[in-house]
Amino acid sequence: MKSWNTAILLFDGVEVLDFAGPFEVFSRARLTPGVESRRVDDGAPFQVFTVAMDAREVRATGGLRVMPSHTFADTPRIDLLVVPGGFGTRALIEDEPTLEWVRRVSAQAELTTSVCTGAAVLARAGLLKGRRATTHYASYDWLGSLDPTIKVERGVRFVWDGVVTSAGVSAGMDMAFEVVAMRCGEAVAQETAEYIEYRRT
Amino acid sequence: MKSWNTAILLFDGVEVLDFAGPFEVFSRARLTPGVESRRVDDGAPFQVFTVAMDAREVRATGGLRVMPSHTFADTPRIDLLVVPGGFGTRALIEDEPTLEWVRRVSAQAELTTSVCTGAAVLARAGLLKGRRATTHYASYDWLGSLDPTIKVERGVRFVWDGVVTSAGVSAGMDMAFEVVAMRCGEAVAQETAEYIEYRRT
Repeated sequence: MKSWNTAILLFDGVEVLDFAGPFEVFSRARLTPGVESRRVDDGAPFQVFTVAMDAREVRATGGLRVMPSHTFADTPRIDLLVVPGGFGTRALIEDEPTLEWVRRVSAQAELTTSVCTGAAVLARAGLLKGRRATTHYASYDWLGSLDPTIKVERGVRFVWDGVVTSAGVSAGMDMAFEVVAMRCGEAVAQETAEYIEYRRT
Repeated sequence: MKSWNTAILLFDGVEVLDFAGPFEVFSRARLTPGVESRRVDDGAPFQVFTVAMDAREVRATGGLRVMPSHTFADTPRIDLLVVPGGFGTRALIEDEPTLEWVRRVSAQAELTTSVCTGAAVLARAGLLKGRRATTHYASYDWLGSLDPTIKVERGVRFVWDGVVTSAGVSAGMDMAFEVVAMRCGEAVAQETAEYIEYRRT
């Protein structure tokens, strides 16, 4: 199985669990069960890294300081894109270079996903046109207002309609496990969940 | 209510969700429900920050790059200490300056907690002597071997016995919600869980 290069977008005001939850799930997935297989990253089904517009430190919600591993200018091939949410998406959807990067990466990626209000970024990039999608419960109307062709689904954990969008914050972990299951099989997803002692919703 | 200064220990090889889960829960807890109260950190019941031995970048599991907000030498008063786990704890329990810092902080803090194999650090610091405690399921025996007076509890989500220890990785979020409930009441814990769309275990 080809390993999927998995890029998680970082930006000021990104919600911590929005990016850290999928980072944890994808980076800990292993085809071989148990603790030992997690000690090395070689052969893992997902090679996970963070990406930001430039190399500067990112301030996540609550003040967590994160350094991106790549910039828009120097990312390797991206097979799986994760766009997290957070209060910072309000500014991000006005940032044309980010939208252009998301469009370009998404066009070449195997799969594009969002967590929480990351869906707003995908909407503004035009990637949810005519699709079913979801977001944090407080942003259903906002998402719909960004592109009236989106069929906003309420009260669901995630929506898989070509692009995969998740509900708020922690739902990104369930979305990630679903992607692991699709890519590696349900047994791998379940064993990874057990490894991090997570009960999937 | 006095805000609790909440320090989350960082070190190379810390598991991402071990620190990011409690960071999310504590930093998003609010006495006032809803989205708006989350836009500012003033008056929040927990002021959350990361701490590491020195100011250098920390490499978490999977290669996530995190900058600590404080060092051992410059932390403000710490009311609540969170010691996460991860493969890095194997080296950390041999690091006397870290153990000494944990001992000193814990002696002055209102509450000391751990996630996953962070319990091993508390054990080596002598903080679990004669107590009931838990850790990641793959490390029950290891924890017991570090201090035979610990009563290791298996198959539980967290153990509250003066010091609060959690099971593996994602269990740290349930532990954090329990601390929020103890400090701010069950309604605040539950509303915070709903805000991040998390179903507590």
